[in-house]
Amino acid sequence: MPEAIRVCIDAMGGDNAPAAPVQGAVDAVKLRNDIKVVLVGQEDVIQAELSKYEYPSEQIEIVNATEIIEMAEHPVNAIRTKKDSSMVVGMKMVRDRQADAFISAGSSGAILVGGQTIVGRIKGVKRPPLAPLIPTENGVSLLIDCGANVDARPEHLVTFAKMGSIYMEHIVGIKNPRVAIVNIGTEEEKGNNLVKETYPMLKECDTINFVGSIESREIPHGGADVIVCEAFTGNVILKLYEGLSQTLISVIKGGLMSTLKSKIGAALALPALKKTIKSFDASTYGGAPLLGLNGLVVKTHGNSKNTEIKNAIFQCISFSENRINEKIKEQLAVESSTEE
Amino acid sequence: MPEAIRVCIDAMGGDNAPAAPVQGAVDAVKLRNDIKVVLVGQEDVIQAELSKYEYPSEQIEIVNATEIIEMAEHPVNAIRTKKDSSMVVGMKMVRDRQADAFISAGSSGAILVGGQTIVGRIKGVKRPPLAPLIPTENGVSLLIDCGANVDARPEHLVTFAKMGSIYMEHIVGIKNPRVAIVNIGTEEEKGNNLVKETYPMLKECDTINFVGSIESREIPHGGADVIVCEAFTGNVILKLYEGLSQTLISVIKGGLMSTLKSKIGAALALPALKKTIKSFDASTYGGAPLLGLNGLVVKTHGNSKNTEIKNAIFQCISFSENRINEKIKEQLAVESSTEE
Repeated sequence: MPEAIRVCIDAMGGDNAPAAPVQGAVDAVKLRNDIKVVLVGQEDVIQAELSKYEYPSEQIEIVNATEIIEMAEHPVNAIRTKKDSSMVVGMKMVRDRQADAFISAGSSGAILVGGQTIVGRIKGVKRPPLAPLIPTENGVSLLIDCGANVDARPEHLVTFAKMGSIYMEHIVGIKNPRVAIVNIGTEEEKGNNLVKETYPMLKECDTINFVGSIESREIPHGGADVIVCEAFTGNVILKLYEGLSQTLISVIKGGLMSTLKSKIGAALALPALKKTIKSFDASTYGGAPLLGLNGLVVKTHGNSKNTEIKNAIFQCISFSENRINEKIKEQLAVESSTEE
Repeated sequence: MPEAIRVCIDAMGGDNAPAAPVQGAVDAVKLRNDIKVVLVGQEDVIQAELSKYEYPSEQIEIVNATEIIEMAEHPVNAIRTKKDSSMVVGMKMVRDRQADAFISAGSSGAILVGGQTIVGRIKGVKRPPLAPLIPTENGVSLLIDCGANVDARPEHLVTFAKMGSIYMEHIVGIKNPRVAIVNIGTEEEKGNNLVKETYPMLKECDTINFVGSIESREIPHGGADVIVCEAFTGNVILKLYEGLSQTLISVIKGGLMSTLKSKIGAALALPALKKTIKSFDASTYGGAPLLGLNGLVVKTHGNSKNTEIKNAIFQCISFSENRINEKIKEQLAVESSTEE
């Protein structure tokens, strides 16, 4: 039997810590007996939380870390000075191969800084992108980069496209995933300077299935599997997805309550409606991996509940089992040797 | 009695031309007897369409233009070579003060090029932005720029903010409108280079009510009245609004049809639901003005129906009646004289 995959959880990160990360860990180990979860953070706090549950105790370990990085802290300073924070301790475990992955619902900025400076980048990856799955009419698409690297350069976007393709093919199981670049029109000459420079480079890249530009209108329709964009654009897309879904649902609920007839209708339709809305909730798809690091770091939403943490744990396991990082390294190595 | 406001319509532009522009014109003149509408395009085609309606004939005029600019044409070439197109002829009427405004559902690119080269820019406006109203939970916000000027510079965004404030105050009637810049976080130090440079300039601008950064998540919640952004970002926001609304509605409809109980519920709730959804449809808010020109040019959606054209006509009338362009000129003139 191969050694169990070990996933490290920031037990102090996010709005619902420590309850959500601890419960998520318990949920995960109850479902699979071949994995290990390490909860990193203040030992007594975690122990108190864990004592609420029954679980196979050999599958959960606590690693003490006394400090907490707060959301408002300056990311670089926080990572540099809080050596005994759950985030720094957890990421060092990944760096030192004591864990395969690290999950946190804490400060995005600190996760990005820590990922790069502590875990470190794969050779050939200059800017590790944050890549969440977003729901579409037919399934999911990978949005890459959604917030790690503002003002990225064309060559960075090409690496995003390659890593995103590997992820979608081996984690989501989409053969030959369609890669598109976010643009303001579908013609090749359209776009800002970044897109105009990146487009021909993607077109020439024979390891990906580049299908051209995608207008944001087509993203929810599932117009491509890997949606490549610069981080500012990706962040705008991700957050508008969230805000607009919430708003439309609240507007629709308001509409349903506007007449007696529609109220009765709403009461009958609500269970089906809730299920539908849930299927369009980005948080059910686990967290956003920071791709291209020497180990896996996953950021989950700040208000993650136990289910999202559990899903993120299984996402990390799938990432390790499918040897995604090895595949990324192989592809980037082949290309750099071809270039020489 | 002052002279009637004259609005020029591109009778050949858009997916539903000439039917929709002609009917929209008829709808408008039936509602107000103090306006004139000029239909520009192929005279016989327009005449045939007009003959279907009864309307006060002295309020609608036809101006012949034999050529049509197609959607796929290169905008600069089209405007330069098709001198007798409905778009060029209509815009020249605005330039020559024969009309107060020009509305087209035709090629966006050609409208942008024609607006700048034929109608011309107000002194002090280097980049005229396209500024549609988008629906929010509480009303509408102005998204400026949504597609005219990719790779704009900070000083352009500051002019957008000023013009957008005047528009929202005098057309939509929002006193002291809240101006925000689209960003990927709310802290002042966040953002890409463009936002970081623009933020302090907006902060120092005392003719606007700058409230800081807005994350795209807050746009549908009505987090600001004037949403300032570079055109690439604005275009992504506008089109994602469209795509995501369509997708969510289709997903919700699918969900409602999933069980017998929910089907009955849906039948009861549908009229109210349709009304709600309509209130969140961007096209009901008329067209997008290209602000900062020596006259008004309005772009409506390519698939505009008569209602949108009619709404756009009233929008143009309101623009003229409220002397928006004069207000923009005054403010920019005051500032340039203060700077000297």
